[in-house]
Amino acid sequence: MPQLPADLPELLEQVRADVAGRVGAGKVADYIPALASVPGDRFGMAVATVDGRLHGVGDWRERFSIQSISKVFGLALTLGLDGDLLWQRVGREPSGGPFNSLVQLEHEKGVPRNPFINAGALVVTDRLLSVTGDATGAVLELLRGETGEPGLGVDSLVAESEAAHGDLNAALGYFISAHGNMDNPVRSVLAHYFRQCAISMSCGELAWAALFLARHGSLHDGRRLLSEVQAKRVNAVMLTCGAYDAAGEFAYRVGLPGKSGVGGGILAVVPRLCTVCVWSPGLDEQGNSIAGVAALERFADLTGSSVF
Amino acid sequence: MPQLPADLPELLEQVRADVAGRVGAGKVADYIPALASVPGDRFGMAVATVDGRLHGVGDWRERFSIQSISKVFGLALTLGLDGDLLWQRVGREPSGGPFNSLVQLEHEKGVPRNPFINAGALVVTDRLLSVTGDATGAVLELLRGETGEPGLGVDSLVAESEAAHGDLNAALGYFISAHGNMDNPVRSVLAHYFRQCAISMSCGELAWAALFLARHGSLHDGRRLLSEVQAKRVNAVMLTCGAYDAAGEFAYRVGLPGKSGVGGGILAVVPRLCTVCVWSPGLDEQGNSIAGVAALERFADLTGSSVF
Amino acid sequence: MPQLPADLPELLEQVRADVAGRVGAGKVADYIPALASVPGDRFGMAVATVDGRLHGVGDWRERFSIQSISKVFGLALTLGLDGDLLWQRVGREPSGGPFNSLVQLEHEKGVPRNPFINAGALVVTDRLLSVTGDATGAVLELLRGETGEPGLGVDSLVAESEAAHGDLNAALGYFISAHGNMDNPVRSVLAHYFRQCAISMSCGELAWAALFLARHGSLHDGRRLLSEVQAKRVNAVMLTCGAYDAAGEFAYRVGLPGKSGVGGGILAVVPRLCTVCVWSPGLDEQGNSIAGVAALERFADLTGSSVF
Amino acid sequence: MPQLPADLPELLEQVRADVAGRVGAGKVADYIPALASVPGDRFGMAVATVDGRLHGVGDWRERFSIQSISKVFGLALTLGLDGDLLWQRVGREPSGGPFNSLVQLEHEKGVPRNPFINAGALVVTDRLLSVTGDATGAVLELLRGETGEPGLGVDSLVAESEAAHGDLNAALGYFISAHGNMDNPVRSVLAHYFRQCAISMSCGELAWAALFLARHGSLHDGRRLLSEVQAKRVNAVMLTCGAYDAAGEFAYRVGLPGKSGVGGGILAVVPRLCTVCVWSPGLDEQGNSIAGVAALERFADLTGSSVF
Repeated sequence: MPQLPADLPELLEQVRADVAGRVGAGKVADYIPALASVPGDRFGMAVATVDGRLHGVGDWRERFSIQSISKVFGLALTLGLDGDLLWQRVGREPSGGPFNSLVQLEHEKGVPRNPFINAGALVVTDRLLSVTGDATGAVLELLRGETGEPGLGVDSLVAESEAAHGDLNAALGYFISAHGNMDNPVRSVLAHYFRQCAISMSCGELAWAALFLARHGSLHDGRRLLSEVQAKRVNAVMLTCGAYDAAGEFAYRVGLPGKSGVGGGILAVVPRLCTVCVWSPGLDEQGNSIAGVAALERFADLTGSSVF
Repeated sequence: MPQLPADLPELLEQVRADVAGRVGAGKVADYIPALASVPGDRFGMAVATVDGRLHGVGDWRERFSIQSISKVFGLALTLGLDGDLLWQRVGREPSGGPFNSLVQLEHEKGVPRNPFINAGALVVTDRLLSVTGDATGAVLELLRGETGEPGLGVDSLVAESEAAHGDLNAALGYFISAHGNMDNPVRSVLAHYFRQCAISMSCGELAWAALFLARHGSLHDGRRLLSEVQAKRVNAVMLTCGAYDAAGEFAYRVGLPGKSGVGGGILAVVPRLCTVCVWSPGLDEQGNSIAGVAALERFADLTGSSVF
Repeated sequence: MPQLPADLPELLEQVRADVAGRVGAGKVADYIPALASVPGDRFGMAVATVDGRLHGVGDWRERFSIQSISKVFGLALTLGLDGDLLWQRVGREPSGGPFNSLVQLEHEKGVPRNPFINAGALVVTDRLLSVTGDATGAVLELLRGETGEPGLGVDSLVAESEAAHGDLNAALGYFISAHGNMDNPVRSVLAHYFRQCAISMSCGELAWAALFLARHGSLHDGRRLLSEVQAKRVNAVMLTCGAYDAAGEFAYRVGLPGKSGVGGGILAVVPRLCTVCVWSPGLDEQGNSIAGVAALERFADLTGSSVF
Repeated sequence: MPQLPADLPELLEQVRADVAGRVGAGKVADYIPALASVPGDRFGMAVATVDGRLHGVGDWRERFSIQSISKVFGLALTLGLDGDLLWQRVGREPSGGPFNSLVQLEHEKGVPRNPFINAGALVVTDRLLSVTGDATGAVLELLRGETGEPGLGVDSLVAESEAAHGDLNAALGYFISAHGNMDNPVRSVLAHYFRQCAISMSCGELAWAALFLARHGSLHDGRRLLSEVQAKRVNAVMLTCGAYDAAGEFAYRVGLPGKSGVGGGILAVVPRLCTVCVWSPGLDEQGNSIAGVAALERFADLTGSSVF
């Protein structure tokens, strides 16, 4: 049984030292100007524990664009508010392909492989929009509530930039709609999708906000967002589908449920114990933070916290 | 060398009699209400000859929605006005797949396989829009000029219906745009694409309007729209790519350059001799008119006009 | 932290009762006569614990064709004997497609997605053959050693039947060879592959034989087959890739590393605690035992042993 | 109506002069040593007319490995001897992909797209083997009969080399067999396939041997191998599928039914008029002779013999 060391700050310092050589490696996401301008040499890491500790190292208080990490919160909210009906509209299988691919979507008639590829997240957003009337607002409310940071919000510059360069996601949305798997207007769903991706948070805030997954569904105030089974299953989907088409590699090296974003962040869950969030903008070819994956691998090794 | 019989009306009557059993077979296009309401028992056929004759049989004077047949005129105009630069943005190979597939487009990074699949026609429309400022207007002007029918126009009901059910084409358009192969706003290109597809013409008008392809590029008044080489090449693309993913079958059975539309029309060219247009709304699984293909096959057999 | 109940036999009886309605559901594998003749109403389940207990229920002592479960032992042996070089020749990503698909193999130039699809297992077998000179013999030696059953062996009737109906695997083998990823003659590799699949074992024997995965690499006599990190990683690959193209579903419902076979067996690992093997021949469309998956899901729920 | 000039030798000289700059361009096929050793600077061209003339230029009397050009003769023979049943086992559509691809074959359950991709030619060979008992012998008999060259034969060195490097074709064969579309043992079919590809002929011999296609099915002695309709249809398949995944390009530029081989030969048919064979070993990326395509394009332009 894995246990966290008493001296978490020291552990984090060690991880940071061990992966220092990887910081700056890879390529900062450049498909929108707002992301391209982020300095590649940043590195932050934070751990939040189910017994209430929060520690960080490096740039762990600096906010960054959470991008696809938002998909975890959107999925959890939708399942929590609306139950398992969602799974009739989106699958739970690893895609075996890039996160923005249309090929599989065509073979499978508009039912995305899983909720963490872009197509799947669009379907989740569509459902959350139907259920709440304001998908972005609902996600922000969850994040603000769990972190106690009412100032958390969308970086409008990033959101607009996403929209301006969003043709590929638009193609996905219209394709899904063409197959009858979209209830709201594609434009509205896209707008909410882009805004959720453009939320800015720090490693500390993300780790804190996601603790309900380590607590198997319970929010900070004891209310349940998800049942225990649902929470385990969100973790399962994170492990099998959370790192784009490198999910197998991530499971192999890190062995934890995780979700990465092209902003350079990765959120990981150690069930029953803690959450870990790491951020470093240099990405590998699959869009995962190079220093981030290395840090999580090192963390899992040092703490024995791989689920395997 | 094939020759047309002196008694074309008799020939057409024979073809009609021979394929009468096929009229009504298949399924009328039903993806938009405006097309679904067309009676399935219609059959019309017309031949226009380079020496100036025009004969028809059955419902050859009844207008129908020309749909993808419009792609021939859009392509010819664009090549005629703008030359061969178009081929840097769209290929000339049979697609080996359905006309609205996204798969190939993804493999080939937004460069459509050929100008007769929907994706390719969107690129052609985009270019024609850039060159003329009004792609639909330019096509209509060509059609009106060649037929001498100033009343030819777009069926607005069909065009709006196409737009309302156009998510799949929108997906194609945004995907192409995402790959940098679209100069105008996707919405504008789509609007022009839908309007061109919604042009109403009769068999007689289509056969007459397309004679420039049998004349290797010369319009009715002797002006050249295409060079001889260009015209031959449009015919070649029609033969290899004109019948969706049944182009090989069409070449095998009919042996003529042809272009079909889901409105049930098929336009065929006998180089140096004539054009033939047939219309019957019942479609096979590939979207080609069942009685239409049978009629063209019979016509080619009776006249020996297969190019092979 | 999951714990096994003191009364394991009672637990197993409960699981059996809870899934009794699923036994007989689905379709017994019928691609070879030797498998098609297995009665569909069989159900057996066994648990082997790291502290040395072994309990079973139903037909847990009846031997069946382990089929793809053999891939786990082949992989573990190859990694144990030869180290991580194998990963240069086979990936670790879920395939997102059927276990015998050639499509992905073509896209990825003969490097199979993971060691648990047939193509990947052929590469593993090829390497094991190079390393040991007798791949089947090496696997049998491991199985006999861990179970203490010297009589374990290959069902020759099944092996011959596999070979006689093995054209698809032959196609995979020659394709891999065409891409230079096969060192031994394709025929030899195929023969060993078919023989490994045709090994007969019972649930009890399989659970017992696989305990080294729950013990993170240590064999029954304390020797190490795999390092701790390697063993965790084999578990990770089982979780992400072990249930064909239903691996995500398996992770979602069961939450344990597992490997299924078309003989109806499924082997699962609860790290640090136990192994579970279930057998019931009725398969779902993805080739996984219907009652088997249900039993493992129930087991994981009752014991809280999901890794998530 | 195209006509051949009286002075064919002069025409051929002009074509040769016009494409001289292309000879040597591209890459000689190097997948087997026996082909890699052919000098890249060869160029030969021959025309055989339905009125009995045969003229050539350059290395038109030098024999080369006909490779995939053999597929034309195998197809014609099978259709001639066995009728149209073949089309239940192989399609007539352009593949839209490389000649040795397995992807499409998987999507279409072992029914090859057309008889000119390798998979399709294996099915044709299988059928010809069933019908004649000796597929290679039957093809050779046809070729010897039409050319009057009893010495025509298989280059055993090439055939053995093909077999030794034939894993990809073996994969295709076993895959087809796995789908029940192969009557003879895969090994036998492969052996005949490799031997047919390894037949050596000169441009003059090939043009002469193929004249029955320009004569719409009649052999040199007046016997019919194919009906007129069948012959036209073989020509149609050549046009739509004869140049691998550059068939559309070939139709666009040359406008004649043609079949290329990786030995650098291309055979083209001008219906009712003549056959043309050109040979130059330098290939483009699709496997078609660069100087060969250029020469045929020039020939078609000078003679106006494009079918379009």
